[in-house]
Amino acid sequence: MSEVPASVACALEPDPRLVERALSERVVWEGSFFDVSHVDVVLPDGERKPREIVRHTGGAGVVAIDEEERICLVRQWRVPQGRVTVEIPAGKLDEGETPRACAARELAEEAGLVAEDLVFLAATSGIPGFSDELTRVFWARGLSRVPSSPDADEFVDVVWLPVADVLEAVRQGAVTDVKTVVAVLAWEAGLCRA
Amino acid sequence: MSEVPASVACALEPDPRLVERALSERVVWEGSFFDVSHVDVVLPDGERKPREIVRHTGGAGVVAIDEEERICLVRQWRVPQGRVTVEIPAGKLDEGETPRACAARELAEEAGLVAEDLVFLAATSGIPGFSDELTRVFWARGLSRVPSSPDADEFVDVVWLPVADVLEAVRQGAVTDVKTVVAVLAWEAGLCRA
Repeated sequence: MSEVPASVACALEPDPRLVERALSERVVWEGSFFDVSHVDVVLPDGERKPREIVRHTGGAGVVAIDEEERICLVRQWRVPQGRVTVEIPAGKLDEGETPRACAARELAEEAGLVAEDLVFLAATSGIPGFSDELTRVFWARGLSRVPSSPDADEFVDVVWLPVADVLEAVRQGAVTDVKTVVAVLAWEAGLCRA
Repeated sequence: MSEVPASVACALEPDPRLVERALSERVVWEGSFFDVSHVDVVLPDGERKPREIVRHTGGAGVVAIDEEERICLVRQWRVPQGRVTVEIPAGKLDEGETPRACAARELAEEAGLVAEDLVFLAATSGIPGFSDELTRVFWARGLSRVPSSPDADEFVDVVWLPVADVLEAVRQGAVTDVKTVVAVLAWEAGLCRA
């Protein structure tokens, strides 16, 4: 098993010149799947400052690529973007669910696929400045089909597109979903090829 | 100039089976740099549903790699993660600022660098399910030094780490900042090498 290289491990140490100590936290807005919290922190120079945080349970996404180098993507309307997006199958963690189990569940539900193996590729903090949201991205190695069963309130459509085309669309800024950007870059880097 | 491949352009079309029509939007929580909105939408089957959105102005990040294949990273405490993170220089857009100008400004302010050219690599929607946040990532080609001037309230520290080490740390799940994950994957894929 590999380890985090020393250069990086050292840079991630809790340097006292950087640490902000949290004094208290209270939820200031409660949503149906994320909350906003107010955290009072003490800065390294002793000053107090309020921080606003979006708290979310996090999720998992899964990269499925077939023998013809096509990637499985879910088309769906995204209200925040006001448009249809294409995204690798993904979803948020159910209560007590591991990221790996979540990835397997979403792969079956959204894409009707099961993998022999789910290989961890990366975990992404989507907006580290103000949210604890974390999405773990897995590569689904060894695919076979199962009946799919999308959530009743999800209007989605599954497509298989050439990975090279999706990479080009990422480079044009037309595909922006971060899990999908990570997926096609990892493919181009040779990290998720059979 | 390249175009978005037809396969992807077609998948991004506003398919009526997917479109959610927004009826109204109101801000339900106002923060200092993001707001939460409530949007009432009509689903493709005619049902009405509320959606919660984190509205943010978006930002830009910049990948700076030197001749020794070390990447410029900012160490800072992140309250949402409760730890020190390493992230490529980045920040949110000032009023009226273009993403490219923002990237150039952050590169100068945080890292004390100026680039001959800023090459667009990708734009990332960090949490597309519930936020319109969009970060544009540029590769800074042709670096030279200028005096740096971090914001007064930012406690940050700039380090140059071997890109290969940071990639390994991404693969271990120890570096999760999405801009940085995209940066090192793009490097491994050969998209930001001199």
